[in-house]
Amino acid sequence: MTYCVAIRLDSGMIFASDSRTNAGVDHVSTFNKMKVYDKSDDRVIVLLSSGNLSVTQGVVNILDRQQFAAPDEPTIWNAKSMFDVATIAGEALREIQRRDGPAMMQSGVEASASLIIGGQIYGERQRLFNIYPQGNFIETCEETPYFQLGESKYGKPILDRVVTTGTPQKEAAKCVLISFDSTIKSNISVGMPIDMLWYPNDSLRVGVQQRIRDGDPYFSMLRQRWGGGLRRVFGELPDPDWLE
Amino acid sequence: MTYCVAIRLDSGMIFASDSRTNAGVDHVSTFNKMKVYDKSDDRVIVLLSSGNLSVTQGVVNILDRQQFAAPDEPTIWNAKSMFDVATIAGEALREIQRRDGPAMMQSGVEASASLIIGGQIYGERQRLFNIYPQGNFIETCEETPYFQLGESKYGKPILDRVVTTGTPQKEAAKCVLISFDSTIKSNISVGMPIDMLWYPNDSLRVGVQQRIRDGDPYFSMLRQRWGGGLRRVFGELPDPDWLE
Repeated sequence: MTYCVAIRLDSGMIFASDSRTNAGVDHVSTFNKMKVYDKSDDRVIVLLSSGNLSVTQGVVNILDRQQFAAPDEPTIWNAKSMFDVATIAGEALREIQRRDGPAMMQSGVEASASLIIGGQIYGERQRLFNIYPQGNFIETCEETPYFQLGESKYGKPILDRVVTTGTPQKEAAKCVLISFDSTIKSNISVGMPIDMLWYPNDSLRVGVQQRIRDGDPYFSMLRQRWGGGLRRVFGELPDPDWLE
Repeated sequence: MTYCVAIRLDSGMIFASDSRTNAGVDHVSTFNKMKVYDKSDDRVIVLLSSGNLSVTQGVVNILDRQQFAAPDEPTIWNAKSMFDVATIAGEALREIQRRDGPAMMQSGVEASASLIIGGQIYGERQRLFNIYPQGNFIETCEETPYFQLGESKYGKPILDRVVTTGTPQKEAAKCVLISFDSTIKSNISVGMPIDMLWYPNDSLRVGVQQRIRDGDPYFSMLRQRWGGGLRRVFGELPDPDWLE
């Protein structure tokens, strides 16, 4: 399983992904699920992925190869808009599925993957897309400024309570980490380290990229104080009086 | 969808269920998902159900009819242990699936349902079981004193943080209601009213049975103060310093 979150704030975008993959319980590994395509002052594109690892790595490989493409070929490097980038990524996903899907299906394995792709291209606003396993995609809006991939339910309530497009980035990053804490606590197949990236709106450069490892002092403090705070709030609430 | 929780505490058992059912978004109704079989001083049995409503009502109907069964027939009324009661309920589930499953399957509808059944029979300790759609079942243990049905993920973190077998019943009831709040907030197919039942251990009588409706003063207070408390704790936590 996987957990990824990306938020489009007024001030910029936050991307975060866990790094645990597993094929059965006896084959657990650490893989990066965040890929950054960065050409400063022209475009910054961030890809988060979940699903079958061979499929998502295949997608990344197709996008990686595009730097050697002929100039007249449409690539993520010459696309004029993030919408076109999402289209290209969705098409890469379909290409891998056409190639590997039938053989995988024969063994009862689904060639399924979901992607989040976001960023900014010079001349356009920052944009964030969620690409479905079929290659079609949706974009965030004012009311729904974030997307999740993978094991999304445990960590969703805190995002819904806190995050709007106007949330300051530090607060949103804190909220994302608490969302990861809830998910990691409840699903053993989501694991550290957490990769985080901050993209400041209109900067056309990666702001901060951070790998948060097990034992990270800030994350450990957050987990402990959040858990303690929840229990304190819970303890302060009055008990029901009808249960004698 | 559905949300049900049952907890086996040292002091007794708490059962809770929502009451929304839907077949598509344009056919939403209120149905009781809690059924109580009560013969005071001899046995109290509580059934919670989720899944296809025709299947769960079929199961309830089979159990209801057992009060008219011949004395030598094994029923929930003459079973010597809650294990036997769970076996009978699982068998009732299989009977409905045998009868209705093939026709439903032809229309692409799954004859699937899950049950929680718990209670106490004179001469035995209180016991709580989770019956799978296939009719097999598991029982709570010291480390895992509760079961959920239906949309379980949103409301699970608070149960995991708070509930042990030693939790006082009022605190556990409060926790169950907060768990319902998180679930109702995140899944529109889980809805009020909430049916709750408290069974005091070794009493062989229903303790309290309560229907919590929309606008219930205690539940409204709990929702508001819990949400406010979460935001307060969140606000008190320091922001990450690496995100300038």
